[in-house]
Amino acid sequence: MTYCLGMLLDAGMVLIADTRTNAGVDNFSCYKKLHCLADSPDRQVFAASSGSLSVSQSVIALLEEGLPPEDKEDTPRSLYAVTSMFRAAQLVGEAVQIINLKVGAALEAIHISSAVSLLLGGRIGEEPPRLFLIYAAGNFIECQPDSPFLQIGETKYGRPILDRSIDMDTPLPDAVKVAFLSFDSAMRSNLGVARPLDMVVMPRDRSLPLLTRRIEPDDEYFNEMSLSWAHMLHQATRTIPDPPFMEGYGGDNEERDRGAA
Amino acid sequence: MTYCLGMLLDAGMVLIADTRTNAGVDNFSCYKKLHCLADSPDRQVFAASSGSLSVSQSVIALLEEGLPPEDKEDTPRSLYAVTSMFRAAQLVGEAVQIINLKVGAALEAIHISSAVSLLLGGRIGEEPPRLFLIYAAGNFIECQPDSPFLQIGETKYGRPILDRSIDMDTPLPDAVKVAFLSFDSAMRSNLGVARPLDMVVMPRDRSLPLLTRRIEPDDEYFNEMSLSWAHMLHQATRTIPDPPFMEGYGGDNEERDRGAA
Repeated sequence: MTYCLGMLLDAGMVLIADTRTNAGVDNFSCYKKLHCLADSPDRQVFAASSGSLSVSQSVIALLEEGLPPEDKEDTPRSLYAVTSMFRAAQLVGEAVQIINLKVGAALEAIHISSAVSLLLGGRIGEEPPRLFLIYAAGNFIECQPDSPFLQIGETKYGRPILDRSIDMDTPLPDAVKVAFLSFDSAMRSNLGVARPLDMVVMPRDRSLPLLTRRIEPDDEYFNEMSLSWAHMLHQATRTIPDPPFMEGYGGDNEERDRGAA
Repeated sequence: MTYCLGMLLDAGMVLIADTRTNAGVDNFSCYKKLHCLADSPDRQVFAASSGSLSVSQSVIALLEEGLPPEDKEDTPRSLYAVTSMFRAAQLVGEAVQIINLKVGAALEAIHISSAVSLLLGGRIGEEPPRLFLIYAAGNFIECQPDSPFLQIGETKYGRPILDRSIDMDTPLPDAVKVAFLSFDSAMRSNLGVARPLDMVVMPRDRSLPLLTRRIEPDDEYFNEMSLSWAHMLHQATRTIPDPPFMEGYGGDNEERDRGAA
Protein backbone atom coordinates (compact mmCIF):
# COMPACT_ATOMS: atom_id res chain seq x y z
CA MET A 1 0.00 0.00 0.00
CA THR A 2 0.90 3.62 0.25
CA TYR A 3 -0.66 6.81 1.51
CA CYS A 4 -0.81 10.15 -0.34
CA LEU A 5 -2.52 13.31 0.85
CA GLY A 6 -3.27 16.55 -0.96
CA MET A 7 -4.74 19.72 0.56
CA LEU A 8 -5.97 22.77 -1.31
CA LEU A 9 -6.35 25.71 1.08
CA ASP A 10 -6.72 29.46 0.89
CA ALA A 11 -3.01 29.70 1.62
CA GLY A 12 -1.95 27.19 -1.03
CA MET A 13 -1.50 23.52 -1.84
CA VAL A 14 0.23 20.74 0.08
CA LEU A 15 1.01 17.35 -1.48
CA ILE A 16 2.68 14.55 0.51
CA ALA A 17 3.39 10.91 -0.36
CA ASP A 18 5.09 8.12 1.50
CA THR A 19 7.59 5.80 -0.22
CA ARG A 20 6.56 2.34 0.96
CA THR A 21 5.63 -0.30 -1.61
CA ASN A 22 4.98 -3.94 -0.95
CA ALA A 23 4.08 -7.06 -2.86
CA GLY A 24 2.67 -9.26 -0.14
CA VAL A 25 4.17 -8.86 3.31
CA ASP A 26 7.61 -10.27 2.49
CA ASN A 27 8.62 -7.85 -0.24
CA PHE A 28 8.83 -4.26 0.99
CA SER A 29 10.69 -1.56 -0.92
CA CYS A 30 11.18 2.19 -0.96
CA TYR A 31 10.04 3.98 -4.14
CA LYS A 32 9.42 7.65 -4.72
CA LYS A 33 5.70 8.26 -5.34
CA LEU A 34 5.76 12.05 -5.58
CA HIS A 35 6.87 13.14 -9.03
CA CYS A 36 7.52 16.55 -10.55
CA LEU A 37 5.90 16.26 -13.98
CA ALA A 38 6.51 19.80 -15.22
CA ASP A 39 8.69 22.62 -13.95
CA SER A 40 9.15 25.73 -16.07
CA PRO A 41 8.58 29.45 -15.47
CA ASP A 42 4.88 29.17 -16.38
CA ARG A 43 3.99 25.85 -14.69
CA GLN A 44 4.76 23.50 -11.83
CA VAL A 45 2.88 20.20 -11.91
CA PHE A 46 3.26 17.36 -9.38
CA ALA A 47 1.65 13.93 -9.07
CA ALA A 48 1.52 11.40 -6.24
CA SER A 49 0.57 7.84 -7.13
CA SER A 50 -0.95 4.85 -5.37
CA GLY A 51 -1.73 1.33 -6.52
CA SER A 52 0.17 -1.02 -8.85
CA LEU A 53 3.75 0.29 -8.95
CA SER A 54 4.41 -1.07 -12.45
CA VAL A 55 1.31 0.66 -13.79
CA SER A 56 1.93 3.98 -12.03
CA GLN A 57 5.59 4.05 -13.12
CA SER A 58 4.49 3.47 -16.72
CA VAL A 59 1.89 6.24 -16.44
CA ILE A 60 4.52 8.69 -15.14
CA ALA A 61 7.03 7.64 -17.82
CA LEU A 62 4.41 7.99 -20.57
CA LEU A 63 3.58 11.49 -19.33
CA GLU A 64 7.27 12.40 -19.30
CA GLU A 65 7.83 11.09 -22.85
CA GLY A 66 4.54 12.52 -24.10
CA LEU A 67 1.31 10.82 -25.20
CA PRO A 68 0.81 9.78 -28.84
CA PRO A 69 -0.03 12.85 -30.98
CA GLU A 70 -3.62 13.26 -32.14
CA ASP A 71 -2.57 13.30 -35.79
CA LYS A 72 0.57 12.16 -37.53
CA GLU A 73 2.02 15.62 -38.07
CA ASP A 74 1.91 16.58 -34.41
CA THR A 75 4.49 16.17 -31.69
CA PRO A 76 3.76 13.98 -28.63
CA ARG A 77 1.26 15.57 -26.24
CA SER A 78 2.92 16.75 -23.05
CA LEU A 79 2.09 18.43 -19.76
CA TYR A 80 4.38 21.25 -20.96
CA ALA A 81 1.86 22.06 -23.70
CA VAL A 82 -1.52 21.91 -21.89
CA THR A 83 -3.13 25.25 -21.13
CA SER A 84 -4.73 24.54 -17.73
CA MET A 85 -4.66 22.10 -14.82
CA PHE A 86 -8.01 20.75 -16.06
CA ARG A 87 -6.33 19.85 -19.37
CA ALA A 88 -3.44 18.37 -17.39
CA ALA A 89 -5.87 16.15 -15.44
CA GLN A 90 -7.44 15.02 -18.74
CA LEU A 91 -4.00 14.11 -20.12
CA VAL A 92 -3.06 12.18 -16.97
CA GLY A 93 -6.42 10.36 -17.09
CA GLU A 94 -5.76 9.44 -20.71
CA ALA A 95 -2.28 8.14 -19.80
CA VAL A 96 -3.87 5.92 -17.13
CA GLN A 97 -6.31 4.56 -19.73
CA ILE A 98 -3.54 3.89 -22.28
CA ILE A 99 -1.40 1.93 -19.81
CA ASN A 100 -4.46 0.04 -18.56
CA LEU A 101 -5.27 -1.01 -22.13
CA LYS A 102 -1.73 -2.37 -22.50
CA VAL A 103 -1.38 -4.32 -19.24
CA GLY A 104 -4.74 -4.26 -17.44
CA ALA A 105 -6.16 -7.41 -19.02
CA ALA A 106 -2.88 -9.32 -18.61
CA LEU A 107 -2.81 -8.45 -14.91
CA GLU A 108 -6.51 -9.26 -14.40
CA ALA A 109 -5.87 -12.67 -15.99
CA ILE A 110 -3.46 -13.52 -13.17
CA HIS A 111 -5.74 -11.90 -10.54
CA ILE A 112 -3.48 -8.92 -9.88
CA SER A 113 -5.13 -5.52 -9.69
CA SER A 114 -3.89 -2.99 -12.21
CA ALA A 115 -5.73 -0.16 -10.45
CA VAL A 116 -3.86 3.06 -9.81
CA SER A 117 -5.01 6.43 -8.57
CA LEU A 118 -3.15 9.72 -8.57
CA LEU A 119 -3.28 13.08 -6.88
CA LEU A 120 -2.38 15.76 -9.41
CA GLY A 121 -1.60 19.22 -8.12
CA GLY A 122 0.00 22.35 -9.48
CA ARG A 123 -0.53 25.56 -11.37
CA ILE A 124 -0.28 26.57 -14.99
CA GLY A 125 -0.04 30.16 -16.23
CA GLU A 126 -2.01 32.63 -14.13
CA GLU A 127 -4.20 29.95 -12.51
CA PRO A 128 -4.12 29.52 -8.74
CA PRO A 129 -2.99 26.07 -7.51
CA ARG A 130 -5.50 23.31 -8.31
CA LEU A 131 -5.71 19.72 -7.09
CA PHE A 132 -7.29 16.64 -8.73
CA LEU A 133 -7.83 12.99 -7.84
CA ILE A 134 -7.54 10.75 -10.92
CA TYR A 135 -9.20 7.35 -10.58
CA ALA A 136 -8.21 3.98 -12.04
CA ALA A 137 -10.52 4.45 -15.04
CA GLY A 138 -8.96 7.81 -15.90
CA ASN A 139 -11.95 9.85 -14.66
CA PHE A 140 -11.23 12.49 -12.05
CA ILE A 141 -12.60 14.93 -9.47
CA GLU A 142 -11.27 18.33 -8.46
CA CYS A 143 -10.73 19.38 -4.85
CA GLN A 144 -13.31 21.96 -3.72
CA PRO A 145 -13.54 24.24 -0.66
CA ASP A 146 -16.20 22.14 1.12
CA SER A 147 -13.77 19.18 1.28
CA PRO A 148 -10.35 20.82 1.10
CA PHE A 149 -8.31 17.62 1.03
CA LEU A 150 -8.06 14.46 -1.07
CA GLN A 151 -6.46 11.14 -0.12
CA ILE A 152 -5.44 7.99 -2.00
CA GLY A 153 -4.10 4.62 -0.83
CA GLU A 154 -4.27 3.65 2.84
CA THR A 155 -6.55 6.59 3.69
CA LYS A 156 -8.63 5.64 6.71
CA TYR A 157 -6.20 5.67 9.65
CA GLY A 158 -5.14 9.24 8.94
CA ARG A 159 -8.58 10.62 8.11
CA PRO A 160 -10.12 11.49 11.53
CA ILE A 161 -7.44 14.09 12.35
CA LEU A 162 -8.04 15.72 8.93
CA ASP A 163 -11.83 15.73 9.35
CA ARG A 164 -11.41 17.45 12.71
CA SER A 165 -8.61 19.90 11.91
CA ILE A 166 -8.45 20.98 8.26
CA ASP A 167 -10.48 23.92 6.93
CA MET A 168 -9.95 26.19 3.97
CA ASP A 169 -8.42 28.83 6.25
CA THR A 170 -5.87 26.53 7.93
CA PRO A 171 -2.46 28.23 7.55
CA LEU A 172 0.20 26.28 5.63
CA PRO A 173 2.45 25.45 8.62
CA ASP A 174 -0.55 24.09 10.57
CA ALA A 175 -1.70 22.15 7.52
CA VAL A 176 1.73 20.51 7.20
CA LYS A 177 1.70 19.70 10.93
CA VAL A 178 -1.75 18.07 10.70
CA ALA A 179 -0.69 16.23 7.54
CA PHE A 180 2.32 14.83 9.40
CA LEU A 181 0.05 13.73 12.27
CA SER A 182 -2.21 12.05 9.71
CA PHE A 183 0.80 10.17 8.27
CA ASP A 184 1.99 9.36 11.79
CA SER A 185 -1.36 7.69 12.56
CA ALA A 186 -1.27 5.69 9.32
CA MET A 187 2.35 4.61 9.85
CA ARG A 188 1.79 3.49 13.45
CA SER A 189 -1.22 1.36 12.55
CA ASN A 190 -0.18 -0.03 9.15
CA LEU A 191 3.13 -1.45 7.91
CA GLY A 192 2.12 -0.48 4.37
CA VAL A 193 2.88 3.20 5.03
CA ALA A 194 6.38 4.40 5.96
CA ARG A 195 8.90 7.21 5.79
CA PRO A 196 10.70 8.75 3.96
CA LEU A 197 7.86 11.13 3.06
CA ASP A 198 8.16 13.42 0.04
CA MET A 199 6.35 16.72 0.18
CA VAL A 200 5.72 19.82 -1.86
CA VAL A 201 4.14 23.05 -0.59
CA MET A 202 2.91 25.51 -3.22
CA PRO A 203 1.82 28.82 -1.59
CA ARG A 204 -0.95 30.69 -3.37
CA ASP A 205 1.15 33.82 -2.76
CA ARG A 206 3.65 33.70 -5.64
CA SER A 207 6.15 35.82 -3.70
CA LEU A 208 6.78 32.79 -1.46
CA PRO A 209 9.01 30.05 -2.86
CA LEU A 210 7.78 26.57 -3.74
CA LEU A 211 8.98 24.20 -1.00
CA THR A 212 9.98 20.58 -1.71
CA ARG A 213 11.41 18.39 1.00
CA ARG A 214 12.01 14.77 1.99
CA ILE A 215 11.24 13.74 5.58
CA GLU A 216 13.67 10.94 6.45
CA PRO A 217 13.00 8.20 9.04
CA ASP A 218 15.31 10.01 11.51
CA ASP A 219 13.79 13.49 10.96
CA GLU A 220 14.13 15.21 14.32
CA TYR A 221 11.10 17.49 13.97
CA PHE A 222 8.81 14.63 12.91
CA ASN A 223 9.98 12.38 15.74
CA GLU A 224 9.52 15.08 18.39
CA MET A 225 6.09 15.94 16.99
CA SER A 226 5.08 12.27 17.16
CA LEU A 227 6.23 11.98 20.79
CA SER A 228 4.52 15.24 21.84
CA TRP A 229 1.33 14.18 20.11
CA ALA A 230 1.28 10.80 21.89
CA HIS A 231 1.87 12.59 25.20
CA MET A 232 -0.86 15.17 24.54
CA LEU A 233 -3.36 12.49 23.46
CA HIS A 234 -2.66 10.66 26.69
CA GLN A 235 -3.15 13.84 28.72
CA ALA A 236 -6.34 14.65 26.82
CA THR A 237 -7.72 11.18 27.52
CA ARG A 238 -6.95 11.66 31.21
CA THR A 239 -8.57 15.10 31.24
CA ILE A 240 -11.92 13.88 29.92
CA PRO A 241 -14.08 12.83 32.90
CA ASP A 242 -14.77 9.12 33.34
CA PRO A 243 -18.20 7.97 32.10
CA PRO A 244 -20.64 8.62 34.98
CA PHE A 245 -22.00 5.06 34.73
CA MET A 246 -18.49 3.65 35.33
CA GLU A 247 -18.23 4.91 38.90
CA GLY A 248 -16.93 2.15 41.14
CA TYR A 249 -15.14 0.35 38.28
CA GLY A 250 -11.66 1.66 39.22
CA GLY A 251 -9.57 3.95 37.08
CA ASP A 252 -7.12 6.82 37.31
CA ASN A 253 -9.68 9.52 38.02
CA GLU A 254 -11.06 7.59 40.98
CA GLU A 255 -7.58 7.06 42.41
CA ARG A 256 -6.87 10.75 41.87
CA ASP A 257 -10.12 11.73 43.57
CA ARG A 258 -9.38 9.46 46.51
CA GLY A 259 -5.89 10.96 46.72
CA ALA A 260 -7.36 14.47 46.86
CA ALA A 261 -9.99 13.61 49.47
CA MET B 1 -20.79 -1.43 7.36
CA THR B 2 -20.52 -1.51 11.11
CA TYR B 3 -17.82 -1.25 13.72
CA CYS B 4 -17.34 -3.52 16.74
CA LEU B 5 -14.55 -3.36 19.28
CA GLY B 6 -13.53 -5.77 22.02
CA MET B 7 -10.85 -5.21 24.67
CA LEU B 8 -9.47 -7.79 27.08
CA LEU B 9 -7.56 -6.06 29.88
CA ASP B 10 -6.24 -6.91 33.32
CA ALA B 11 -9.34 -5.22 34.75
CA GLY B 12 -11.82 -7.05 32.53
CA MET B 13 -13.49 -7.17 29.16
CA VAL B 14 -15.23 -4.43 27.15
CA LEU B 15 -17.35 -5.18 24.09
CA ILE B 16 -19.02 -2.42 22.05
CA ALA B 17 -20.95 -2.50 18.77
CA ASP B 18 -22.69 0.16 16.75
CA THR B 19 -26.14 -0.42 15.22
CA ARG B 20 -25.79 0.93 11.68
CA THR B 21 -26.49 -1.35 8.74
CA ASN B 22 -26.70 -0.36 5.12
CA ALA B 23 -27.36 -1.97 1.77
CA GLY B 24 -25.83 0.56 -0.59
CA VAL B 25 -26.01 4.20 0.46
CA ASP B 26 -29.79 4.59 0.16
CA ASN B 27 -30.86 1.89 2.58
CA PHE B 28 -29.69 2.59 6.14
CA SER B 29 -31.21 0.90 9.16
CA CYS B 30 -30.65 0.41 12.87
CA TYR B 31 -30.09 -3.18 14.03
CA LYS B 32 -28.70 -4.45 17.28
CA LYS B 33 -25.33 -6.18 16.67
CA LEU B 34 -24.42 -6.95 20.28
CA HIS B 35 -26.22 -10.08 21.46
CA CYS B 36 -26.34 -11.84 24.80
CA LEU B 37 -26.00 -15.52 23.84
CA ALA B 38 -25.96 -17.04 27.31
CA ASP B 39 -26.76 -15.65 30.73
CA SER B 40 -26.97 -18.00 33.71
CA PRO B 41 -25.24 -18.15 37.11
CA ASP B 42 -22.23 -20.00 35.64
CA ARG B 43 -21.82 -18.15 32.32
CA GLN B 44 -22.28 -14.88 30.48
CA VAL B 45 -21.52 -14.99 26.76
CA PHE B 46 -21.87 -12.06 24.33
CA ALA B 47 -21.26 -11.70 20.59
CA ALA B 48 -20.95 -8.67 18.31
CA SER B 49 -21.34 -9.25 14.57
CA SER B 50 -20.24 -7.55 11.37
CA GLY B 51 -20.87 -8.33 7.71
CA SER B 52 -23.97 -9.66 5.94
CA LEU B 53 -26.91 -8.95 8.28
CA SER B 54 -28.98 -11.87 7.00
CA VAL B 55 -26.10 -14.29 7.62
CA SER B 56 -25.19 -12.92 11.04
CA GLN B 57 -28.83 -12.95 12.19
CA SER B 58 -29.12 -16.58 11.09
CA VAL B 59 -25.90 -17.46 12.93
CA ILE B 60 -27.20 -15.86 16.13
CA ALA B 61 -30.62 -17.53 15.77
CA LEU B 62 -29.00 -20.94 15.15
CA LEU B 63 -26.88 -20.51 18.28
CA GLU B 64 -29.98 -19.57 20.28
CA GLU B 65 -31.95 -22.58 19.00
CA GLY B 66 -28.96 -24.91 19.27
CA LEU B 67 -26.83 -26.62 16.60
CA PRO B 68 -27.81 -30.07 15.26
CA PRO B 69 -26.89 -32.79 17.79
CA GLU B 70 -23.88 -34.97 17.01
CA ASP B 71 -25.98 -38.14 17.16
CA LYS B 72 -29.72 -38.73 16.96
CA GLU B 73 -30.21 -39.33 20.66
CA ASP B 74 -28.69 -36.01 21.74
CA THR B 75 -30.28 -32.64 22.32
CA PRO B 76 -29.27 -29.65 20.16
CA ARG B 77 -25.80 -28.33 21.05
CA SER B 78 -25.97 -25.02 22.84
CA LEU B 79 -23.74 -22.38 24.39
CA TYR B 80 -25.40 -23.29 27.70
CA ALA B 81 -23.73 -26.73 27.52
CA VAL B 82 -20.16 -25.95 26.44
CA THR B 83 -17.52 -26.18 29.15
CA SER B 84 -15.21 -23.30 28.19
CA MET B 85 -15.06 -20.15 26.07
CA PHE B 86 -12.77 -22.04 23.68
CA ARG B 87 -15.57 -24.59 23.13
CA ALA B 88 -17.99 -21.68 22.75
CA ALA B 89 -15.79 -20.18 20.00
CA GLN B 90 -15.71 -23.57 18.26
CA LEU B 91 -19.52 -23.79 18.38
CA VAL B 92 -19.92 -20.24 17.00
CA GLY B 93 -17.41 -21.03 14.24
CA GLU B 94 -19.41 -24.14 13.36
CA ALA B 95 -22.64 -22.11 13.26
CA VAL B 96 -20.98 -19.68 10.80
CA GLN B 97 -19.94 -22.63 8.61
CA ILE B 98 -23.45 -24.17 8.68
CA ILE B 99 -25.15 -20.93 7.63
CA ASN B 100 -22.50 -20.33 4.96
CA LEU B 101 -23.19 -23.77 3.52
CA LYS B 102 -26.89 -22.92 3.30
CA VAL B 103 -26.72 -19.44 1.73
CA GLY B 104 -23.07 -18.69 0.86
CA ALA B 105 -23.15 -20.13 -2.67
CA ALA B 106 -26.54 -18.52 -3.45
CA LEU B 107 -25.21 -15.11 -2.39
CA GLU B 108 -21.92 -15.54 -4.26
CA ALA B 109 -23.94 -16.37 -7.39
CA ILE B 110 -25.48 -12.89 -7.29
CA HIS B 111 -22.15 -11.27 -6.30
CA ILE B 112 -23.16 -10.46 -2.73
CA SER B 113 -20.66 -11.25 -0.02
CA SER B 114 -21.88 -13.68 2.62
CA ALA B 115 -18.88 -12.94 4.85
CA VAL B 116 -19.49 -12.30 8.53
CA SER B 117 -17.12 -11.96 11.43
CA LEU B 118 -17.90 -11.94 15.13
CA LEU B 119 -16.33 -10.87 18.39
CA LEU B 120 -17.19 -13.43 21.06
CA GLY B 121 -16.54 -12.50 24.67
CA GLY B 122 -17.53 -13.79 28.05
CA ARG B 123 -16.76 -16.21 30.82
CA ILE B 124 -17.85 -19.74 31.65
CA GLY B 125 -17.46 -21.37 35.06
CA GLU B 126 -14.33 -20.29 36.93
CA GLU B 127 -12.58 -18.98 33.79
CA PRO B 128 -11.60 -15.32 33.63
CA PRO B 129 -13.19 -13.34 30.77
CA ARG B 130 -11.92 -14.38 27.31
CA LEU B 131 -12.35 -12.75 23.92
CA PHE B 132 -12.27 -14.28 20.43
CA LEU B 133 -12.52 -13.05 16.84
CA ILE B 134 -14.37 -15.54 14.62
CA TYR B 135 -13.68 -15.17 10.90
CA ALA B 136 -15.96 -15.78 7.92
CA ALA B 137 -14.68 -19.35 7.47
CA GLY B 138 -15.43 -20.24 11.09
CA ASN B 139 -11.77 -20.21 12.19
CA PHE B 140 -10.87 -17.90 15.07
CA ILE B 141 -8.16 -16.21 17.10
CA GLU B 142 -8.10 -15.39 20.80
CA CYS B 143 -7.19 -11.97 22.19
CA GLN B 144 -3.77 -12.01 23.90
CA PRO B 145 -1.97 -9.49 26.17
CA ASP B 146 0.43 -8.25 23.44
CA SER B 147 -2.55 -6.96 21.42
CA PRO B 148 -5.27 -6.42 24.02
CA PHE B 149 -8.03 -5.45 21.60
CA LEU B 150 -9.79 -6.91 18.56
CA GLN B 151 -11.85 -5.05 15.95
CA ILE B 152 -14.24 -6.08 13.16
CA GLY B 153 -16.03 -4.09 10.46
CA GLU B 154 -14.99 -0.51 9.71
CA THR B 155 -11.84 -0.78 11.84
CA LYS B 156 -9.28 1.64 10.46
CA TYR B 157 -10.57 5.09 11.43
CA GLY B 158 -10.75 4.19 15.09
CA ARG B 159 -7.52 2.24 15.29
CA PRO B 160 -4.80 4.92 15.83
CA ILE B 161 -6.27 6.05 19.18
CA LEU B 162 -6.34 2.41 20.33
CA ASP B 163 -2.76 1.74 19.21
CA ARG B 164 -1.63 4.79 21.16
CA SER B 165 -3.74 4.44 24.31
CA ILE B 166 -4.73 0.88 25.19
CA ASP B 167 -2.48 -1.39 27.27
CA MET B 168 -3.26 -4.41 29.42
CA ASP B 169 -3.20 -2.20 32.52
CA THR B 170 -5.65 0.46 31.23
CA PRO B 171 -8.40 0.78 33.88
CA LEU B 172 -11.95 0.00 32.73
CA PRO B 173 -13.30 3.59 32.81
CA ASP B 174 -10.33 4.81 30.71
CA ALA B 175 -10.78 1.87 28.33
CA VAL B 176 -14.45 2.78 27.81
CA LYS B 177 -13.48 6.42 27.25
CA VAL B 178 -10.86 5.49 24.63
CA ALA B 179 -13.32 3.06 23.03
CA PHE B 180 -15.87 5.89 22.73
CA LEU B 181 -13.21 8.13 21.15
CA SER B 182 -12.42 5.32 18.70
CA PHE B 183 -16.11 5.08 17.77
CA ASP B 184 -16.34 8.88 17.58
CA SER B 185 -13.51 8.91 15.01
CA ALA B 186 -15.14 6.17 12.95
CA MET B 187 -18.58 7.85 13.06
CA ARG B 188 -17.26 11.27 12.05
CA SER B 189 -15.39 9.88 9.04
CA ASN B 190 -17.78 7.17 7.84
CA LEU B 191 -21.56 7.13 7.46
CA GLY B 192 -21.49 3.35 7.84
CA VAL B 193 -20.95 3.62 11.61
CA ALA B 194 -23.51 5.32 13.88
CA ARG B 195 -25.09 5.45 17.32
CA PRO B 196 -26.84 3.97 19.23
CA LEU B 197 -23.89 1.97 20.55
CA ASP B 198 -24.48 -1.14 22.64
CA MET B 199 -21.88 -2.03 25.23
CA VAL B 200 -21.09 -4.61 27.87
CA VAL B 201 -18.35 -4.33 30.51
CA MET B 202 -17.36 -7.54 32.33
CA PRO B 203 -14.97 -6.78 35.21
CA ARG B 204 -12.48 -9.53 36.02
CA ASP B 205 -13.33 -8.83 39.68
CA ARG B 206 -16.52 -10.84 40.19
CA SER B 207 -17.62 -8.62 43.08
CA LEU B 208 -18.33 -5.86 40.52
CA PRO B 209 -21.55 -6.17 38.53
CA LEU B 210 -21.67 -6.82 34.79
CA LEU B 211 -22.56 -3.54 33.07
CA THR B 212 -24.69 -3.38 29.91
CA ARG B 213 -25.76 -0.07 28.42
CA ARG B 214 -27.01 1.57 25.23
CA ILE B 215 -25.46 4.91 24.23
CA GLU B 216 -28.17 6.84 22.37
CA PRO B 217 -27.52 9.52 19.72
CA ASP B 218 -28.35 12.22 22.31
CA ASP B 219 -26.19 10.74 25.09
CA GLU B 220 -24.97 13.77 27.03
CA TYR B 221 -21.69 12.26 28.25
CA PHE B 222 -20.74 11.04 24.76
CA ASN B 223 -21.55 14.39 23.16
CA GLU B 224 -19.56 16.37 25.73
CA MET B 225 -16.64 13.96 25.40
CA SER B 226 -16.69 14.39 21.63
CA LEU B 227 -16.67 18.19 21.92
CA SER B 228 -13.90 18.23 24.56
CA TRP B 229 -11.84 15.87 22.44
CA ALA B 230 -12.16 18.05 19.34
CA HIS B 231 -11.18 21.08 21.43
CA MET B 232 -8.19 19.32 22.98
CA LEU B 233 -7.00 18.00 19.62
CA HIS B 234 -7.14 21.54 18.26
CA GLN B 235 -5.18 22.84 21.26
CA ALA B 236 -2.63 20.03 20.93
CA THR B 237 -2.13 20.83 17.25
CA ARG B 238 -1.57 24.48 18.17
CA THR B 239 0.88 23.54 20.93
CA ILE B 240 3.17 21.54 18.65
CA PRO B 241 5.76 23.93 17.17
CA ASP B 242 5.50 24.72 13.45
CA PRO B 243 7.91 22.77 11.23
CA PRO B 244 11.20 24.74 11.25
CA PHE B 245 11.37 24.67 7.45
CA MET B 246 7.96 26.41 7.22
CA GLU B 247 9.16 29.69 8.72
CA GLY B 248 7.91 32.59 6.64
CA TYR B 249 4.91 30.63 5.31
CA GLY B 250 2.39 32.28 7.68
CA GLY B 251 0.45 30.49 10.36
CA ASP B 252 -0.98 30.97 13.83
CA ASN B 253 2.30 30.61 15.67
CA GLU B 254 3.88 33.35 13.59
CA GLU B 255 0.93 35.68 14.16
CA ARG B 256 1.04 34.87 17.87
CA ASP B 257 4.77 35.55 17.97
CA ARG B 258 4.31 38.87 16.17
CA GLY B 259 1.49 39.78 18.58
CA ALA B 260 3.73 39.07 21.54
CA ALA B 261 6.69 41.03 20.15
